[in-house]
Amino acid sequence: MTKNKVVRLARRPHGAVKREDFAISVEEMLEPGDGEFRVKTEYVSLDPAMRGWMNEGKSYIPPVAIGEVMRAITVGTVEASRHPNYAEGDIVVGLLGTQEYAISNGAGITKADITLAPMPSWLGGLGMPGLTAYFGLIKISQPREGETVVVSAASGAVGQIVGQIAHLKGCRAVGIAGGPEKCRFITQELGFDAAVDYKAGNLYGDLKAACPNGIDVNFESVGGDIMDTVLAQMNPFGRIALCGLISSYNATELPPGPKNMRAILAMRLRMQGFIVFDFIKDYPEALTALSNWYRDGKLQFREDVRTGGLDAFPDMLGLLYTGGNFGKLVLKI
Amino acid sequence: MTKNKVVRLARRPHGAVKREDFAISVEEMLEPGDGEFRVKTEYVSLDPAMRGWMNEGKSYIPPVAIGEVMRAITVGTVEASRHPNYAEGDIVVGLLGTQEYAISNGAGITKADITLAPMPSWLGGLGMPGLTAYFGLIKISQPREGETVVVSAASGAVGQIVGQIAHLKGCRAVGIAGGPEKCRFITQELGFDAAVDYKAGNLYGDLKAACPNGIDVNFESVGGDIMDTVLAQMNPFGRIALCGLISSYNATELPPGPKNMRAILAMRLRMQGFIVFDFIKDYPEALTALSNWYRDGKLQFREDVRTGGLDAFPDMLGLLYTGGNFGKLVLKI
Repeated sequence: MTKNKVVRLARRPHGAVKREDFAISVEEMLEPGDGEFRVKTEYVSLDPAMRGWMNEGKSYIPPVAIGEVMRAITVGTVEASRHPNYAEGDIVVGLLGTQEYAISNGAGITKADITLAPMPSWLGGLGMPGLTAYFGLIKISQPREGETVVVSAASGAVGQIVGQIAHLKGCRAVGIAGGPEKCRFITQELGFDAAVDYKAGNLYGDLKAACPNGIDVNFESVGGDIMDTVLAQMNPFGRIALCGLISSYNATELPPGPKNMRAILAMRLRMQGFIVFDFIKDYPEALTALSNWYRDGKLQFREDVRTGGLDAFPDMLGLLYTGGNFGKLVLKI
Repeated sequence: MTKNKVVRLARRPHGAVKREDFAISVEEMLEPGDGEFRVKTEYVSLDPAMRGWMNEGKSYIPPVAIGEVMRAITVGTVEASRHPNYAEGDIVVGLLGTQEYAISNGAGITKADITLAPMPSWLGGLGMPGLTAYFGLIKISQPREGETVVVSAASGAVGQIVGQIAHLKGCRAVGIAGGPEKCRFITQELGFDAAVDYKAGNLYGDLKAACPNGIDVNFESVGGDIMDTVLAQMNPFGRIALCGLISSYNATELPPGPKNMRAILAMRLRMQGFIVFDFIKDYPEALTALSNWYRDGKLQFREDVRTGGLDAFPDMLGLLYTGGNFGKLVLKI
């Protein structure tokens, strides 16, 4: 009889995530009760936010408990159902955790239309990263036509969508990415107006050259020196949508904040943190927009699909914090 | 014949302001031309922003040039007029500079009604600091009844008004100030709901005790460790009106920003810088509100009036950056 492989949080990581922070076990198969269904996991989404979920302390969502299945968004196939709205063969997306099989009662589950886009895209451009890009750009930073939008981690799951939407909205889309290959990709493949390679050693000057009229909007996922450099080039009344601070997620002590705080004052900037879950009532609006752009060929998604199953999960997760992925990182089960 | 004593910027300060950064000279009396009037300066306003005006570099207003009369808001008496709207004896307020006499064509000048409040109040609660408090609190941080509002530099020119307005709006007004005397003043005299003495050595714990329901709004004028401590106690969807960063104005190198940046993300905070001049079209609304509250005894102003004339200006200015003033600092001429 089939068993269920499960990745559980074994301890709270100190610094970078290690294999020993997780316990991988083979457990009894889960059986759906009345009003439930079983999902066979096809792909697990690897997201920067996972590192935060592993920490103790007050945040927007409770931490994963020690011994609990590691929290993850997955896409999978319904293969046994006692729920009236879900049938065998349905493709579903939700917070079903790092396990080969999961039980759901439908709460927080959405169905994925794989005739529109393949399964990994429902964890990327048509999933949480796409929604994050949409809400952070459109609702939080409110770009106007002709403005310059700078996005960090620009070839990543969220950044790649932000830049493309900014371009579609008539903005100058400038991406910051690591290395010439990612920079080439966002300009040549995705249509960003310019790319800046933060590894090239001249971030301030290269950013200045890419943004001759200054920066009106910063969609920020990195923090640290990158954010600090962007801050120094913001225009009056600029907006910063704070989506992530990945440069510090593995820090063992809180790193100092940006030196250019004074720009927030002198330039009257608005910096606003946001979490995609706060926009849940607007998901349909965003998903319609993203789907239509994708269908019309105006929006592309790049996923970085890794193999190795759940055993590879701990190592794959680490890629996110070193720029080792290229596009939305997902793990095939 | 009467001469005009003038304080000019002699050089750009390095760190704290020194007497040698200014040149004090006795110059020829100024005579108004057609459409102009001469103002005899009665009080000079000493404002934290002055330190920024002395620096080179991009900001919300051009720096004071070397050799130029030091920029300052003053209140004074019209004593010679060739302008149809200003008569001898009128009391006027404006950016007339650190000098005993100034010439104006009326641009940016407002008349002060000294039957309502004495002259120093028109540089304080009914002047730029009062307007700053009003717009930063009402327009930028938008407090709702029952929320907790924390204001730093709480006995200062702006902070004292912020806390009183917050209290009037049904918020819990908590002030951070230096020393027991200032703390007693804001609670006993001004009606703040609580005070926290940042010099007492237990800012985090004392702030926590003063804000049992967390912090919804931070009206921030200080920055540094004080702001960092407040950030760590902000509630979800809190707002930070960034009015000043006085703790770093004399820094010779940019100090690091707050370590608790992650709170902006996790708590979805909105931090917004603002400058009172951006609200010029709404000055009448604010001034009406402030005047009415003052007339009705709902709002008090504390000024710290210093003597010594313009010769004392350089030393008096320094008081602002060490907490040496107690209330709105003005210099009597």
